[in-house]
Amino acid sequence: MSAPRTKYFEDFAHGEAFETPPVQVTADDIIRFAAAFDPQPMHLSATAPGGLIASGWHTASLTMRLFVTSGWYAPPQGALGMGVQDLTWPRPVHPGALLRLRIEVTGLRISRSKPGFGILSMRMVTLTQDGDAVQTMTTSVLIPRRSL
Amino acid sequence: MSAPRTKYFEDFAHGEAFETPPVQVTADDIIRFAAAFDPQPMHLSATAPGGLIASGWHTASLTMRLFVTSGWYAPPQGALGMGVQDLTWPRPVHPGALLRLRIEVTGLRISRSKPGFGILSMRMVTLTQDGDAVQTMTTSVLIPRRSL
Repeated sequence: MSAPRTKYFEDFAHGEAFETPPVQVTADDIIRFAAAFDPQPMHLSATAPGGLIASGWHTASLTMRLFVTSGWYAPPQGALGMGVQDLTWPRPVHPGALLRLRIEVTGLRISRSKPGFGILSMRMVTLTQDGDAVQTMTTSVLIPRRSL
Repeated sequence: MSAPRTKYFEDFAHGEAFETPPVQVTADDIIRFAAAFDPQPMHLSATAPGGLIASGWHTASLTMRLFVTSGWYAPPQGALGMGVQDLTWPRPVHPGALLRLRIEVTGLRISRSKPGFGILSMRMVTLTQDGDAVQTMTTSVLIPRRSL
């Protein structure tokens, strides 16, 4: 992880897009996450029908890691998620997958209740090395404004 | 985790509700998850403004654990999530929180594309020991029918 320059609400533009570098998911990673959080057969064993696949929550957590460590998103003190709409997992994640995140800015507005903050809305698609979408979501974060 | 009896689509009823036993979240748990998946200051250190709080994705993953290990939900070979609508984190999760999950069945229908399966839709609210909601979502899973 590099030390990116700090970014404020004003540093994002509507329609702007960014793709992160990839992270690899191993069978061990999949099984370790599943043992802690989603102990179902298809997430724990390669002998399950269909082979070993990652928990959707593992993919979601890796997506957050890609988002936070990319340097594209670098608010002054971290920023709080305001929630997620339409989180889907269109295809399974298998061991060895190289996941990267594509982010597109879909909305930018000043917070009504917290005028020192802006609301950054994004469409996020998590992709494999073959360009297949394994997760999609729309999400918003509250991010400090530079000027107040 | 007990060994629950297997449940099929037909074993769930519209409006049915269930509350899981609790799981405790420690400061170590919060920091370990954040280091792997959400390395922002408020998830890594108790000296951050507002104190240490869990990543929303940690709360989501713990919610999945409560769901899968409760015994209420026990499909024949695990079941696949079809996605999530309106995932929100209305309050922060602090170290020591005892989280439990309240599930309500909000929809039951046969899958059009896979007639051997039904779609179970649920409203899920993750609660602290004080009854405060720290996560809400609506989600659906594909679950085998008994009769085909």
